[in-house]
Amino acid sequence: MTTPTRILLCGATGRMGRTVADLLAGDSAFQLVGGLDRDEVAGREGPGGLPLASLADAAEVLAETDVVIDFSAPAFLSRLLDQYGDVLAGRALVVGTTGLDAAGEAALDRVAARSAVLRAANFSVGVNLLAALVEQAAAVLGPEFDVEIVEAHHRRKEDAPSGTALALGEAVAAGRQVSLEDTRRDGRSGRPGKRPEGEIGFHALRGGDVIGEHTVHFIGDMERIELTHKAADRRLFAAGALRAAAWMAGREPGRYSMREVLGL
Amino acid sequence: MTTPTRILLCGATGRMGRTVADLLAGDSAFQLVGGLDRDEVAGREGPGGLPLASLADAAEVLAETDVVIDFSAPAFLSRLLDQYGDVLAGRALVVGTTGLDAAGEAALDRVAARSAVLRAANFSVGVNLLAALVEQAAAVLGPEFDVEIVEAHHRRKEDAPSGTALALGEAVAAGRQVSLEDTRRDGRSGRPGKRPEGEIGFHALRGGDVIGEHTVHFIGDMERIELTHKAADRRLFAAGALRAAAWMAGREPGRYSMREVLGL
Amino acid sequence: MTTPTRILLCGATGRMGRTVADLLAGDSAFQLVGGLDRDEVAGREGPGGLPLASLADAAEVLAETDVVIDFSAPAFLSRLLDQYGDVLAGRALVVGTTGLDAAGEAALDRVAARSAVLRAANFSVGVNLLAALVEQAAAVLGPEFDVEIVEAHHRRKEDAPSGTALALGEAVAAGRQVSLEDTRRDGRSGRPGKRPEGEIGFHALRGGDVIGEHTVHFIGDMERIELTHKAADRRLFAAGALRAAAWMAGREPGRYSMREVLGL
Amino acid sequence: MTTPTRILLCGATGRMGRTVADLLAGDSAFQLVGGLDRDEVAGREGPGGLPLASLADAAEVLAETDVVIDFSAPAFLSRLLDQYGDVLAGRALVVGTTGLDAAGEAALDRVAARSAVLRAANFSVGVNLLAALVEQAAAVLGPEFDVEIVEAHHRRKEDAPSGTALALGEAVAAGRQVSLEDTRRDGRSGRPGKRPEGEIGFHALRGGDVIGEHTVHFIGDMERIELTHKAADRRLFAAGALRAAAWMAGREPGRYSMREVLGL
Repeated sequence: MTTPTRILLCGATGRMGRTVADLLAGDSAFQLVGGLDRDEVAGREGPGGLPLASLADAAEVLAETDVVIDFSAPAFLSRLLDQYGDVLAGRALVVGTTGLDAAGEAALDRVAARSAVLRAANFSVGVNLLAALVEQAAAVLGPEFDVEIVEAHHRRKEDAPSGTALALGEAVAAGRQVSLEDTRRDGRSGRPGKRPEGEIGFHALRGGDVIGEHTVHFIGDMERIELTHKAADRRLFAAGALRAAAWMAGREPGRYSMREVLGL
Repeated sequence: MTTPTRILLCGATGRMGRTVADLLAGDSAFQLVGGLDRDEVAGREGPGGLPLASLADAAEVLAETDVVIDFSAPAFLSRLLDQYGDVLAGRALVVGTTGLDAAGEAALDRVAARSAVLRAANFSVGVNLLAALVEQAAAVLGPEFDVEIVEAHHRRKEDAPSGTALALGEAVAAGRQVSLEDTRRDGRSGRPGKRPEGEIGFHALRGGDVIGEHTVHFIGDMERIELTHKAADRRLFAAGALRAAAWMAGREPGRYSMREVLGL
Repeated sequence: MTTPTRILLCGATGRMGRTVADLLAGDSAFQLVGGLDRDEVAGREGPGGLPLASLADAAEVLAETDVVIDFSAPAFLSRLLDQYGDVLAGRALVVGTTGLDAAGEAALDRVAARSAVLRAANFSVGVNLLAALVEQAAAVLGPEFDVEIVEAHHRRKEDAPSGTALALGEAVAAGRQVSLEDTRRDGRSGRPGKRPEGEIGFHALRGGDVIGEHTVHFIGDMERIELTHKAADRRLFAAGALRAAAWMAGREPGRYSMREVLGL
Repeated sequence: MTTPTRILLCGATGRMGRTVADLLAGDSAFQLVGGLDRDEVAGREGPGGLPLASLADAAEVLAETDVVIDFSAPAFLSRLLDQYGDVLAGRALVVGTTGLDAAGEAALDRVAARSAVLRAANFSVGVNLLAALVEQAAAVLGPEFDVEIVEAHHRRKEDAPSGTALALGEAVAAGRQVSLEDTRRDGRSGRPGKRPEGEIGFHALRGGDVIGEHTVHFIGDMERIELTHKAADRRLFAAGALRAAAWMAGREPGRYSMREVLGL
């Protein structure tokens, strides 16, 4: 029998954290050694009786961890990386926190010199497959097919467009060998004028309890291609994070992607 | 045999003007007596040999007209109404020009004191039926169903959202007994925060040669309703304008709507 | 404080029965007095500690019931109606069992002489609203718009098309003032030839864990209307059944419909 | 300046034949040397003044042809192949006729020993790209994702499902390394029971003037992928057939596919 992979859960009391904890509870391939979260909840019991620690007291539990799974927030993650770079060396990080700025990405790069690091906007097989298909379609169809990316999420989501929509936009840009930064356009209002060639449009619907839907439209003069992903259950993302954790345990230092985990 | 309805076509050389002229050519219920357009084209022959006049020389042909069909531009329409209010009295106007500002609408109201006036963002049976259904759905479902309106048009369209999308938004607002102005939101980008209750979202896709597609999403916590219209042929709108012209000929002065024409 | 409505749950251990029991547990407007189910489970405790009886022992609990909510199976329902017509007199029945044959419907009609009876293929607000909109659209658009109804459900569903799809087809037929029986077509394969005018097509997709999606397509030569409902949570239907039960309690004998409950 | 490719058009007076002739008229890379069609029209002028011959008189014009483009019918194509195998040797055939039976396919194989032969259900870039993406998705997702293929065409189409839908089903089967024949299911009605694992479902909508739409649904328990193609203009297919003809002219004998033409 193999030794279970020891997991430390960062952002343990958030929605994704609790879903990951639920899945871990029933899976003998993993052992959940602890949870980190904001100072206010430290010392309490987290989901499933999990002992919760604050960042200040994380050293001990980190030392017994194989893989950190992080669904916290940019500021929290940033403090973790700053304070525990040494302890993290030789361990793996699976990061699902979105909305990182350039400094946050740079911090992940620094840690990746000594740890195996994977950050993903979306851990589902389907979305990562979709990104691979989108990249190919963009390469074959070229910029004469206008691209518009439409996503929908629940009404409590605060940022727009979603991290996954941006990742799909990156796939379009990669297929066309351009930069997303130069071609991105979020919404249209008033009198934007004729559509510039090469523009990549983003449209963020918000409503109800929608878990996450993304469609990439390739719109030509005589034909259209539409590539869609729909998530129907939040556990999808938790299951993908665990799949990533199992794959990352014991890897060499460096940056990894879900496409590698999934063999796409 | 009945006398054909005499039509003056305003914006005769534009895309919609030419499509209307094509349909008129094959329909004995109508007689196309002339076309108005920008000064540069006056004196030439328009579509199907139609004699084109400039606004300055429009008095004579207007005097022989039953219904003016206008697919020009806000400024052109505004000059027509200002200069020929007296000649238009007792005649009918069918206006398809979109993007009018408050002053343009007020000018239509003034002319409607002495002429029958119908302005529509969209002349198709389907879109006007959709607006009626949307109003009912909004009334039944209430503001706990979040509304997002998505439209797609060809890449040359310069304004956003489309006049039809706004008309559908007005239908939602009417069903909820609120004002669209207070609740309208065009696109989302960055960190808009949680969705305010009652917001009506608009999303304008642009690409290829799409003629016009509109979907109104009603997104609840456990269910969704989506009401969609797709136009597949531009002649659809011209045919609807002719249907409106036939219905408007000889009407009493006042403002009319496509829903009345269609008996919805 | 009002007296709670006393509910007897028929088919208490099935998927819908358990969902209804869950919702009832948290709602002080109702009191769950018992559950009926197959003989094998009688005497056990059902969901939430509910005492389960077999049909043979139902007389006593029925006598203390205001509304029977039935999500069982055609044969079970048929035996209930046959054996307990007298006890049901003056009480109300809310029936969600689908797949009744003509004899099953006739039995409901007989019971409705002395009891208030509502049978619905679907208890959601959205689907019932959709049916009302579909009927109007069919009346306005006429048979020159071809109608195709597409539905999707999970891979365990055994019948096709769904009861809800058929109810939407009935709404189309009512709007056109024709009979569904004469115009219904389930799927196409081989060489069916040109589409007959007036045909109403049905297409049943099965896959994954889809809760229920229905789209009615109205396809004209130059435009299309598509009216869609998507269920995202099975509790939707249970909540609708409770809303119906509250409305039905104490009603006069007769047949009722969800459209009446919802005021559509 | 290069010599234009000489084209013989088979089925020249049909809908696709006329569209191909229109496109050829404006393209100096091609020379349309003649048209073949049913005996009734032989000797007349076809589209654009094209001289039409019957099969009996085809030898002379075939001898001056580089590429035969065929949009006729299975029986007509079969007679062409039988009677002119010798004349076709060293020339190329681009076949868009659908609905061939096994004997028809075998006849193409025989001719391919001496001629370059390409048969495609659909000549658009988009559909062929879609087939490539579908094959990959089927391979990655495996049979636990249920596949349902939905297509829509105009109301005059006589066969179902479309040749393109079947080609997409072949792509799914190839990705899963199974045979389409063993897993195909056209529509569902009555009580088909639980969905068998591995089944590939087909659903053929017919209505209005729809040119052609195809969606492949991959439906998992927690997520879905939907890959869609929409044709908006029939010239799309004619343009693809010309692209194929240009690529096929002068090729070695053998069977070729649109994926090769498009470099997918």
